[in-house]
Amino acid sequence: MNEVKIFSPATVANVTCGYDVLGFCLDNVGDEMIVRKTAKKGIHITKIEGYDLPFEADKNVAGVSALALLNHANLDYGFEIEIYKHIKPGSGIGSSSASAAGSVFAINELLGRPYSKTQLTEFAMKGEALASGSEHADNIAPALFGGFTLVKSIAPLTVLEIPSPADLYATVIHPQIEIKTAEARAILPKEIPLKIAITQWANVGSLVHALHTNDYNLIQSSLKDIIIEPFRSKLIPQFENVKLAALNSGALGCGISGSGPSIFALSKGKDMALKVENAMELVYRNTEVAFNTYVSKINLEGIRILS
Amino acid sequence: MNEVKIFSPATVANVTCGYDVLGFCLDNVGDEMIVRKTAKKGIHITKIEGYDLPFEADKNVAGVSALALLNHANLDYGFEIEIYKHIKPGSGIGSSSASAAGSVFAINELLGRPYSKTQLTEFAMKGEALASGSEHADNIAPALFGGFTLVKSIAPLTVLEIPSPADLYATVIHPQIEIKTAEARAILPKEIPLKIAITQWANVGSLVHALHTNDYNLIQSSLKDIIIEPFRSKLIPQFENVKLAALNSGALGCGISGSGPSIFALSKGKDMALKVENAMELVYRNTEVAFNTYVSKINLEGIRILS
Repeated sequence: MNEVKIFSPATVANVTCGYDVLGFCLDNVGDEMIVRKTAKKGIHITKIEGYDLPFEADKNVAGVSALALLNHANLDYGFEIEIYKHIKPGSGIGSSSASAAGSVFAINELLGRPYSKTQLTEFAMKGEALASGSEHADNIAPALFGGFTLVKSIAPLTVLEIPSPADLYATVIHPQIEIKTAEARAILPKEIPLKIAITQWANVGSLVHALHTNDYNLIQSSLKDIIIEPFRSKLIPQFENVKLAALNSGALGCGISGSGPSIFALSKGKDMALKVENAMELVYRNTEVAFNTYVSKINLEGIRILS
Repeated sequence: MNEVKIFSPATVANVTCGYDVLGFCLDNVGDEMIVRKTAKKGIHITKIEGYDLPFEADKNVAGVSALALLNHANLDYGFEIEIYKHIKPGSGIGSSSASAAGSVFAINELLGRPYSKTQLTEFAMKGEALASGSEHADNIAPALFGGFTLVKSIAPLTVLEIPSPADLYATVIHPQIEIKTAEARAILPKEIPLKIAITQWANVGSLVHALHTNDYNLIQSSLKDIIIEPFRSKLIPQFENVKLAALNSGALGCGISGSGPSIFALSKGKDMALKVENAMELVYRNTEVAFNTYVSKINLEGIRILS
């Protein structure tokens, strides 16, 4: 195999109570990439469609993660990468992670899979760091592992694959506004009351238990973020109304995707997820904010080979 | 059935990262109680052996929880209770909870089990409040449900039964010192850094996942408390040495039981738990602190009927 075409999905990080640790993978929204072996050493990005991103490998997240892998592999040949970008950068559904994880996943396939998913996550984190300024695996882990992931720790990198009910669907709405990562960080408190931290970790524990036991009622009562959301939701116009609309129409839970501006909801069944989509859309339709929406099964596979 | 004799076990609350939410049940240390129906209405405590506790039902934790049940049941008869107390009050392994949960468990048996474990927990919390000043279920839930429990919330009371590996054993050492509950509370910070809260809830999530998947390595790396232990361990002489001894001799983890002074460790297999017991004992043997120890399988049943 000298060439592989892959689908690298969008992902939701900071799943309510699981801020900074819990994420999941979407199914029908993501980038496509073609990676092929070349006699020429190094990484060469030959095509980028969809968004205006740098072609220099060391300035492109897909390039940087690929170079991290190459540094480790020490090969006497190289790879060229074509990127067909569908996830808008800055949307809050893991655009940079899809690029960073996609390139190393594809190269690993072409090499005969010498690297584990955890190792690929580590390479991809180098690319993610270019985009976000710090190495984190919140979106990379669900992209590479699929399903729900819990990033237990970064050093050593420990990614846990949390099972989830077969009938769980996500609805995502992306209001087309820009949130600066720096602002989303600066708005967070350095210290939080112990009391609400306890409530949050009770919810993390019960959400993990609920996902293991397919307990939709418990998923519903655990999908709460009483720490980050009260601060960051202020950066997203209509957040409270969108959340209320989602919950009132039957969503199990609703929260900020990543650091926003996208908002996600989880529902039992596709019909409900579509109903929730409609309710969320209605809120922005009455405003000047442009938006788009996605309804997706939880993608248990993660990045996949198209051809 | 007019009389029942029960074993009401000791329990470990505040299981490292799961402060205030996660507990488990011990197997071979606990109180015995005999409860019998009487024509006379109300609750009458007729015998207390082991420790000096009040006979007035409304001043005794077993009495107060029983009265809470009776208030709800509205019966034209009553119960007398004999208490054979083996768990020392103030030891940090759920002495008051064993009494509070034991009486309502036994009465429920004599009534033909009209109440759920969750309802019994609610009654028992009234008794616990007499002892600790606030209604909490940290020790009551594992005593009534058995195994590992996660108290997700108090209002509404939601207790989750978390599975655990069959070969998990606890070692408990109880140094015979007194820790005042008020002091154990006052020493805790009101606010904590967001950063360490995130690490703690990552560990809660991964511990629940590890218990579900029988992953001993993950249990080991999750059994950490970076928030409460640094403060409360100061109240327990030799805590750091005991913990080090336990971990060095092969324990998966070690922490403060409840609000102390007891210290618990978890190990894979009984042999290891006994080895850990020996290591923990050695630390106190070189001091003036009197102590006793327990080695116990995780008790999956909770309170049980003896006859």
